[in-house]
Amino acid sequence: MSHTAELIAVGTELLLGNIANTDAQTLSRELSALGINVYYHTVVGDNPERLKKAVEIAKTRADLIITTGGLGPTCDDLTKNVLAEAFGKKLVYNPEAARRMEAYFQKLHPESGRTMTENNYQQAYLPEGCTPFQNDRGTAPGCGFEADGIWVLMLPGPPSECGPMFRSRAVPYLAGLADGAIVNRSLRIFGMGESAVEFQLRDQMNAMKNPTLAPYAKEGEVELRITAKAPDPVAAQALIAPVEEELRSRFGPLVYGVDVSSLEEVCLALLKDQGLSLACAESCTGGLIAKRITDLAGASSVFRGGVVSYTNEVKHGVLGVPRELLDQFGAVSAPVAEAMAEGARRTLGADLAVSATGVAGPDPDDRGNPVGLVYVALAWDGGVFVHTVHAAGPRERVRTVAASHAFDLLRRRLTGLPL
Amino acid sequence: MSHTAELIAVGTELLLGNIANTDAQTLSRELSALGINVYYHTVVGDNPERLKKAVEIAKTRADLIITTGGLGPTCDDLTKNVLAEAFGKKLVYNPEAARRMEAYFQKLHPESGRTMTENNYQQAYLPEGCTPFQNDRGTAPGCGFEADGIWVLMLPGPPSECGPMFRSRAVPYLAGLADGAIVNRSLRIFGMGESAVEFQLRDQMNAMKNPTLAPYAKEGEVELRITAKAPDPVAAQALIAPVEEELRSRFGPLVYGVDVSSLEEVCLALLKDQGLSLACAESCTGGLIAKRITDLAGASSVFRGGVVSYTNEVKHGVLGVPRELLDQFGAVSAPVAEAMAEGARRTLGADLAVSATGVAGPDPDDRGNPVGLVYVALAWDGGVFVHTVHAAGPRERVRTVAASHAFDLLRRRLTGLPL
Repeated sequence: MSHTAELIAVGTELLLGNIANTDAQTLSRELSALGINVYYHTVVGDNPERLKKAVEIAKTRADLIITTGGLGPTCDDLTKNVLAEAFGKKLVYNPEAARRMEAYFQKLHPESGRTMTENNYQQAYLPEGCTPFQNDRGTAPGCGFEADGIWVLMLPGPPSECGPMFRSRAVPYLAGLADGAIVNRSLRIFGMGESAVEFQLRDQMNAMKNPTLAPYAKEGEVELRITAKAPDPVAAQALIAPVEEELRSRFGPLVYGVDVSSLEEVCLALLKDQGLSLACAESCTGGLIAKRITDLAGASSVFRGGVVSYTNEVKHGVLGVPRELLDQFGAVSAPVAEAMAEGARRTLGADLAVSATGVAGPDPDDRGNPVGLVYVALAWDGGVFVHTVHAAGPRERVRTVAASHAFDLLRRRLTGLPL
Repeated sequence: MSHTAELIAVGTELLLGNIANTDAQTLSRELSALGINVYYHTVVGDNPERLKKAVEIAKTRADLIITTGGLGPTCDDLTKNVLAEAFGKKLVYNPEAARRMEAYFQKLHPESGRTMTENNYQQAYLPEGCTPFQNDRGTAPGCGFEADGIWVLMLPGPPSECGPMFRSRAVPYLAGLADGAIVNRSLRIFGMGESAVEFQLRDQMNAMKNPTLAPYAKEGEVELRITAKAPDPVAAQALIAPVEEELRSRFGPLVYGVDVSSLEEVCLALLKDQGLSLACAESCTGGLIAKRITDLAGASSVFRGGVVSYTNEVKHGVLGVPRELLDQFGAVSAPVAEAMAEGARRTLGADLAVSATGVAGPDPDDRGNPVGLVYVALAWDGGVFVHTVHAAGPRERVRTVAASHAFDLLRRRLTGLPL
């Protein structure tokens, strides 16, 4: 399957610069992993004439056209109308799509007694003969169809809907076209920068055709995705296994998980397995550590709670950090990080506790500690360990990287690795 | 003359999804402010043939073509070669551009004794008759020229170079091309769903040409954007004012801000203005309220801290929620939400405190409270108020909406609105 794809994003807000076209980035990554070449991205506003022209151009240079945005009632289903017309398809009412929308709507408004409005039902009109893509995170369904030797996918614009729909609905649809299986495996690495990982793997990556190997940088982390194509999933897995083995031996304990989505997910599973509870004490991360662990369903079985101590009074009064430490070393210091972790463990009655105190920015603190300096600590029954983080970048990134270091300390402790 | 711009980004890394096309966002914003319409963005890889075709298409539909990327030696000056050819221009050595590159290189490597290499000098070849744009943050110069009635700008790809060069070099070059101003105003609404807002405004929106009105859904919020075009910013503002006035009277206190980015931003400003401090106590939101307020630089001037009380022991032991309340009503109840807010206010020593306790999902709690039921409370000196939220959707959305309700209670209190 050697396909050439073009992505067409529809939305005046993109042309005004109100948002960046991150859907194009997401889909390009996914398509690259599927071995599908992307030759062009096009962005066009909420304008039927200009969208029509963009589609006409795309038809001359791509055999897979993927649109994002312009579905749903707020834009009069612009994309659906224009694409259906461009490919000579009628829009027909799809009862299955309507039923799924109703179910989503009910789930969203369980006690309101509200029913879907006319313009919601409009979304159930889809090109004749298409495969509807259910939207698990919104109402507007997407769809896929084939016409004139070109495959067309229509996906919703909001990034929270577009990527998930592509992965869960469009990839299986495309795999059906390919007459084979496409299997991904994703290794997550923490503790080495993207450029260092890429430098080590560059020659190997360039030489690989099937499976392919691609790195994706996440804030302070690297995801290495191995993608194999084969007649069936077992054969694809067999292609992946030796590559995974080699990466594991190369990166050793930096590999924190396979097909997992975050460090906190790994930590939650380890805590559950070992029957241990967790607490946290946060200064510069301001609740992010607690937020990340409680993003996960089932966190309540291990997480007892946290204290966000944004002032010295709270560090002393609630967490019991000795005033002498705060006076002598300042709030941003290794001794205070240790005392915070120990205080959280004691105050919140947990087996383990993590802490973070540092300078998230944009300005250095009043003792001259630079932006990005963060002390993260881990306390357990009988010990405490503190790690110094020098994070680069804006406030949000400093906070994210610091929280990840706290989870990584926990992961290392729970898997018996050196801290 | 009304100008129509097309942005062409050159870079295979964009088509692989390694980076998002943030240059397009930056330039679109800047162009919009100059009153220049952007009708298309195009992204193409490091491929001369495909770039040439993209330029040919752009020539038929734009009179201002702005390229980003493909300038330096690593891509063989792809963009410069293709664009010069497309407009029938020779590349000629520009001694001034070479001198500026030398100066930049010296500044970058003051002690290395290194000199510029041949391929660096290659960058000093520019289309004949162009205006070179000095690069203050890199070596590759940009340039602007006019040919065939079309204005062409070439800018470097790295975002740290592209935006600054546009603002400092290209805008003065374009001065006089722009024939008017585009002005945006964004009203933020909390407390009414997107489809309900849209339903109220649909006919009006469809009838409007200048200014235009467009709704954008955020989780549990709606942004209404008014955009006007006029000969100058004052005239554009005058077009916007009556629409804004009408929307404000229609939606009343649901409008929480204009040209702001979040409820917490509004709350932080109000707290600062009134010299009041804030604390929080969180159960189901698990740190999200604290995280959202501390996402903002300057939060430390008003935010004292928070307690994430994920167990009854922490609610009682740290926040002082009476055991009788927990036993009688359960953790997910209005009385416990009130006691949590009062406890946070007292324990953390703040003027005001918000709390949230509820069922984020995916499963109902052990007392049978349904997913999405959250009690949020606000405590102040002499009072406490609790609001019952029925949030819909997955765990993440329930948490986000609950946190937003907590901030909305705070906003209402601080602006004297009924709770």
